[in-house]
Amino acid sequence: MQMLESLEIIDQQVKKWMQEARIKIVSSLDSSLDVTTKSGPNDLVTNIDREVEEFYKTKILEFYPKSGIIGEESSHELDEPQRKKLLWVIDPIDGTMNFVKQKDHFASMIAIYQNGVGVRGYIYDLMQNKLYWGGPNIGVFCNNERLDPPCNQSLDKGLIGIGAPLLIGNYHNLQKAALESSGTRIYGCSGIQFIHVLNGQCAAYISYLRPWDYAAGKVLAETLGLVVKTIDGNPIDMLSSSDVLVATKNAQKDITRIVQSTY
Amino acid sequence: MQMLESLEIIDQQVKKWMQEARIKIVSSLDSSLDVTTKSGPNDLVTNIDREVEEFYKTKILEFYPKSGIIGEESSHELDEPQRKKLLWVIDPIDGTMNFVKQKDHFASMIAIYQNGVGVRGYIYDLMQNKLYWGGPNIGVFCNNERLDPPCNQSLDKGLIGIGAPLLIGNYHNLQKAALESSGTRIYGCSGIQFIHVLNGQCAAYISYLRPWDYAAGKVLAETLGLVVKTIDGNPIDMLSSSDVLVATKNAQKDITRIVQSTY
Repeated sequence: MQMLESLEIIDQQVKKWMQEARIKIVSSLDSSLDVTTKSGPNDLVTNIDREVEEFYKTKILEFYPKSGIIGEESSHELDEPQRKKLLWVIDPIDGTMNFVKQKDHFASMIAIYQNGVGVRGYIYDLMQNKLYWGGPNIGVFCNNERLDPPCNQSLDKGLIGIGAPLLIGNYHNLQKAALESSGTRIYGCSGIQFIHVLNGQCAAYISYLRPWDYAAGKVLAETLGLVVKTIDGNPIDMLSSSDVLVATKNAQKDITRIVQSTY
Repeated sequence: MQMLESLEIIDQQVKKWMQEARIKIVSSLDSSLDVTTKSGPNDLVTNIDREVEEFYKTKILEFYPKSGIIGEESSHELDEPQRKKLLWVIDPIDGTMNFVKQKDHFASMIAIYQNGVGVRGYIYDLMQNKLYWGGPNIGVFCNNERLDPPCNQSLDKGLIGIGAPLLIGNYHNLQKAALESSGTRIYGCSGIQFIHVLNGQCAAYISYLRPWDYAAGKVLAETLGLVVKTIDGNPIDMLSSSDVLVATKNAQKDITRIVQSTY
C-alpha cells in the first residue's frame, strides 16, 4: 500500500515534468534546431533532446536521489544496486527524425522499474497532447480516460507495424507476416507504434529496439494483457537492445508460426 | 476570368459538401459499420463509403449536370465528351482499412479536371480537420493558410513513403531507394501520404494507385512545383491505374537514378 501511495505521488510529478517538457519541445519547433548525428546519418540528436533529458534527470534526482537512470543521451553504466532499486528509463524525444523532418509523430517516454519489475510507463504523443500512462494495479489511461484492453485480433484481421530495416531485410520471414496481415504501417517512432497497439489500431509491432525505446511501452502493453517478447518468443532483458514484438495474444501466435517456419 | 470566377464558387460548394461529409463520416465511427470486401480481404468498402459517394455525386449533378464523374465505388465508364468537359474524380473515404481498424488516418478526396487539365484538388484529413485544397493560379492552402512550396530535399535528406507491396516486392529496386533515404514511412492512405509530401514532411511517395487515389494529390503537388510521374519518369494518364511517384525535383532525380540502375 505504501508503494502504491508513493506511485500516485510519482504519477503527479511525472505528468507535471512531462507537460513542462512538452511546452519546451513544441515551442522549439518554431526555432532552428542544433541537429547532429550519432551512430550514422539517420541517427539524430538535437539540443532539445539533450536539454529535456537533463531536465528529467535533474527532476528525478532532486526527488529520488538514489534512483538509477538510463537515458538515451547519457551513459548507461549502472552498478547493481542502482539497477535493483528504483530505475528510470527515459527517452526525451523518441522519433527524433520525425521531430526534425516532420514536426509531428514523436513522443516523450519515461518508465519506472522497481526491483526489476515495471511499475509505470508514460508515453506522451506530444503533438496530439495525449499522454498514455499507467501500470499494474491501476490500468492504462489516455490522459484521464481509461483504456479497455484491445480486442484479441489475429494477424490476418489486424494491421502490423514493422521497423523498416527488418521489413526490407526480411528478418525472420517478416515479409510473410506483413503480407498475411491486413496491412503494414511504419510511423518512424516506437512510442507512436506502441500507442497504436495499446489502442487496438494495430495488432502487432516489431522492431529492433533499445531499452528506452520499449521500456514504457512494455509496462503499458503488459498491463493491458498484450504480449511483449523477442520475436522468437523469449523474455526481454530490460537492459539490452533486442528485437521486440508487442502484439495481441492471437497475433503473437500467428507471427511465431511464421517466424518458426523459417527454421 | 470567367473560369476562375466559377472555380471560386465551386471551391465554396465543395468545401461545404466535404464538411457535411466529414460530419457524417466522423459520427459514424461511434456506430457499427457494414464492412464488405471487394477485390480481396484487404480491399474494404463500408456503407459510409457508398453513402458519401452518392452524396457527392448527387450534389455535383445537381449543380453541374453535364459533369463526368469517376468514383471509387461507382462505374468508371465515361464517354468521350464526359471526359473532356468537367470531370470530377472522387474518393469518399481514402484509407478505408484505417477508417475501419484505426478510426484515424483516412481522407476524403475530390479532384476537378477541365478539358483534361487538373484545376482543383481537395484532400481532407478528416480526423485532423485539415482540408488541403487549391490548384493552378491560386496555390495550395491548408484550411485558410497558404502552403509554401516545400524545400527541394534530396532523397538522402528526406523521408520516403512507399506502398508496402512495392517495398516488400522490391519493385524497381525500391528497397535501395528506401535505404538511401532518411527513413521509410507507411501510413496506409494515399491522401495522407500525399499531404506529407505537400507539407515537406516526406521528400517522396511511391505507390501503385488508381485514379481516385492520386487525382487530387496530383493537382496540389504540381501546383507546388513537385513532380508527379510514373516511377520511370513518364507522364501519368489520368484515367489509368499506375505506379505513381510524387517527389521533390531532387528526390525524383535520385529515385530515377536508382530505378534505372536495375535495367
